[in-house]
Amino acid sequence: MQHTLRIYNTLTRQKEDFQPLNPPFVGLYVCGPTVYNNVHLGNVRSFLTFDILVRYLRFIGYTVRYVRNITDVGHLVGDGDEGEDKIGRMAKLEKLEPMEIVQRYTNDFHNVLLQFNLIPPSIEPTATAHLVEQIEATQNLINKGLAYESNGSVYFDIARYNEQGNEYGKLSGRILDDLLTETRDLEGTDEKKSPLDFALWKKAAPEHIMQWNSPWGKGFPGWHLECSCMSTKYLGPQFDIHGGGMDLKFPHHECEVAQGKALNGVDPVRYWMHANMLTVNGQKMSKSLGNSFLPGELFAGNHPLLEQAYSPMTVRFFMLQSQYRSTLDFSNEALKASQKGYRRLINGLRIAKTLQFESGDQPLDEKKATEIRNALDGFYKAMNDDLNTAVAIAELFTLLKYVNMLQAGQLHPSALGETLFAELKDSFVSFLQDLLGLMEEQPTGDEMLKGMLNLYREFKEAKQYDKVDEIRSYFKSQGLVIRDLKTRIDWAYDE
Amino acid sequence: MQHTLRIYNTLTRQKEDFQPLNPPFVGLYVCGPTVYNNVHLGNVRSFLTFDILVRYLRFIGYTVRYVRNITDVGHLVGDGDEGEDKIGRMAKLEKLEPMEIVQRYTNDFHNVLLQFNLIPPSIEPTATAHLVEQIEATQNLINKGLAYESNGSVYFDIARYNEQGNEYGKLSGRILDDLLTETRDLEGTDEKKSPLDFALWKKAAPEHIMQWNSPWGKGFPGWHLECSCMSTKYLGPQFDIHGGGMDLKFPHHECEVAQGKALNGVDPVRYWMHANMLTVNGQKMSKSLGNSFLPGELFAGNHPLLEQAYSPMTVRFFMLQSQYRSTLDFSNEALKASQKGYRRLINGLRIAKTLQFESGDQPLDEKKATEIRNALDGFYKAMNDDLNTAVAIAELFTLLKYVNMLQAGQLHPSALGETLFAELKDSFVSFLQDLLGLMEEQPTGDEMLKGMLNLYREFKEAKQYDKVDEIRSYFKSQGLVIRDLKTRIDWAYDE
Repeated sequence: MQHTLRIYNTLTRQKEDFQPLNPPFVGLYVCGPTVYNNVHLGNVRSFLTFDILVRYLRFIGYTVRYVRNITDVGHLVGDGDEGEDKIGRMAKLEKLEPMEIVQRYTNDFHNVLLQFNLIPPSIEPTATAHLVEQIEATQNLINKGLAYESNGSVYFDIARYNEQGNEYGKLSGRILDDLLTETRDLEGTDEKKSPLDFALWKKAAPEHIMQWNSPWGKGFPGWHLECSCMSTKYLGPQFDIHGGGMDLKFPHHECEVAQGKALNGVDPVRYWMHANMLTVNGQKMSKSLGNSFLPGELFAGNHPLLEQAYSPMTVRFFMLQSQYRSTLDFSNEALKASQKGYRRLINGLRIAKTLQFESGDQPLDEKKATEIRNALDGFYKAMNDDLNTAVAIAELFTLLKYVNMLQAGQLHPSALGETLFAELKDSFVSFLQDLLGLMEEQPTGDEMLKGMLNLYREFKEAKQYDKVDEIRSYFKSQGLVIRDLKTRIDWAYDE
Repeated sequence: MQHTLRIYNTLTRQKEDFQPLNPPFVGLYVCGPTVYNNVHLGNVRSFLTFDILVRYLRFIGYTVRYVRNITDVGHLVGDGDEGEDKIGRMAKLEKLEPMEIVQRYTNDFHNVLLQFNLIPPSIEPTATAHLVEQIEATQNLINKGLAYESNGSVYFDIARYNEQGNEYGKLSGRILDDLLTETRDLEGTDEKKSPLDFALWKKAAPEHIMQWNSPWGKGFPGWHLECSCMSTKYLGPQFDIHGGGMDLKFPHHECEVAQGKALNGVDPVRYWMHANMLTVNGQKMSKSLGNSFLPGELFAGNHPLLEQAYSPMTVRFFMLQSQYRSTLDFSNEALKASQKGYRRLINGLRIAKTLQFESGDQPLDEKKATEIRNALDGFYKAMNDDLNTAVAIAELFTLLKYVNMLQAGQLHPSALGETLFAELKDSFVSFLQDLLGLMEEQPTGDEMLKGMLNLYREFKEAKQYDKVDEIRSYFKSQGLVIRDLKTRIDWAYDE
């Protein structure tokens, strides 16, 4: 089957057929986290969006180089050109070396994404590992007359850039005059020719902990430049897809477009994709509103807004039930419904894996066969339609119905024929596991051990020694023994 | 209790009292992996050694900044100044971008160390993230007359370094004349004043994939320089402890000593620690001998030399049963013995956690109390004696004996007195868990589910419906249901 993925391209504000520059290779760059605090759920949704994209692209045959960076310097509080570095600020608060902050929150980020079963990127570059490239790019832009040094900092000259037939604002749809009105008087603009000009390199105040030598004195790179340098280095001056959260569209991605075009003479990115935001009970998730919880709080259920714990796979499934460009609203009702849905699908997964074709003399059930074929096609259609996982999941539930009927004997395999039977079984498994990345979650061994020991105690009390022995020998087979202690019964390793 | 840790210092070839430069702070740098293949067990032993060091230093009250790097460029095949970059070579073989190789094996490294329960470092810097610093240090050494440019590469001038009253070779105990004899005719020395001089910066051949601009043209940093730059940056020009595997003593660490002294005028490191090698059945572990297995093969038991699988904690415990400066020999006999020992200790751990003091009228049992006190002291003494975990573990088994006696009622808590009882209980738990880093390992939920379902089936057959119902309701409490299928019995999520 030939799949044409259609992607909503922020740059053109429409869905377009995805045509990679060098098929079967696809270059994908996703803006990763600034590692100065625990990753929040909004970020997770964005990373999950591109996890699905990578899985789907690979599934339909592309070879994807997936680059997702770690911002470990240069991202200032307020996202602009003034203020402290986010990591440096946290380092001062916690009295740590900035790189200790970076390490701590990089570890947290990796752990959380692992729990959500996100596949790791092919390359995970850091901003500090590309200082040479960033200094060179800055010098390059000065040489081209598109950047200027001012008081030890270097700024991108938007007026000059636009004079050359470019259009700063074209990605985000911002109008230059509006932007000028908005930003006037907001920032200290003494150094800049225009308040819209953005920093490529910032002079470091003496108290700024993270700084490096450069042709313009001691400083640090601007936040936007790292992504241009890293994407160019690993994916080339023009590559296929750039992803990120919607909040990054302006100014971060707008500046990337300008930098890339100015440096290499081509639009850096063919398709820009932006994942939408999370809300909680209809409100923006924010710390100040008190409705912001961390992934760990969700898994443990220990936040006032949460009625119970929700497992990583429940949350993953919940997020996939909306298409990535819709806002997604967290509520206990919605999460509970997702838990139910997730469990139904995973039950189906366990069943599907055990289904075996049996020959028989059933006539082909055309109606059912057609419904299955339509659901299979529908799944791909939904995924091809800008990764509409919401609709794709609805098709999965149709397939689930037939998986369950086969299991229950309400439908004989021969009524579908061997080919369609195999396609139903294999597709159901791979759609769920490989494409949506949903895994089985089981109770821990510890919980099950407790249940077994309870039974053991009851058999002993009832003097059912055959059962007592049987449990003992089962434990033995697991390398364990049962200990009858005075106050309780416990398990131990078989020494 | 005041602990004086004694450390065998490779630099002085004797055990010395450890006295940090700025107590309670300790700066520790450990050479991490070159991420071009799967981490091997010899590396794991080395990293485990410093895991124990960090745990112990923190346990006795120090605040440790633990830096362990990732070498992602500059380490050449053969460990010298000629040949291909190890990562670049693998990238060509696998037709990947070098940073894809770096990412893959960094992930493997982290996963393996997590399985062995190693605590992550405070900072995990990469060589590529310190190119600016390495270029500056190289320029610095040229300015000082201790390095020279030759054909686009820059070399450290050992003769000049020694003329200034330094002694290249003092860490490893190598004699300069011997080294000269050994290396003559071995390497292409045209560029170098002396064959011993080592590269700070290497000119990159056009086909070399990893290269950066520098004052000396396109090239890449020498392997030894990264560690000097990163340790100086995060721990200062002189810091407390530098660790690594014994194979790194020469030339890598010898060159670090020279670079640090030449750059900053002080010996960079106070205490050098080196972990010894692994052997297999008495032979050096090596791929060419076919006796080299990966951690994953050990856990799965799928290597011809392995009679069974050994769990991560069994292997961790096995490694700790030797002091880190001894060679450690892998054999099935030794590993099986370790499995037994590990299980005995963890059984004790589970018991110790549940022990409760009870008052009673027992007289103090002086003999037993003394033996416990001696074992507690002995544990610390062993750890203070250059981290002699072998002896420390022997003392743990003495403590285990009393934990088991208390459990079995052969010793009444009051015979020890409340203070000693608490010390025995708390120390046993923290020695095992916090200091040696040994964790419980349990059968998976899946294995236990199977055992339960087996019992369920038998009850059903025997028509013991009270038990059938009980198991059903236990499953229910775990969010599961039991499904009676035609061909088998299976569990499913409670939808």
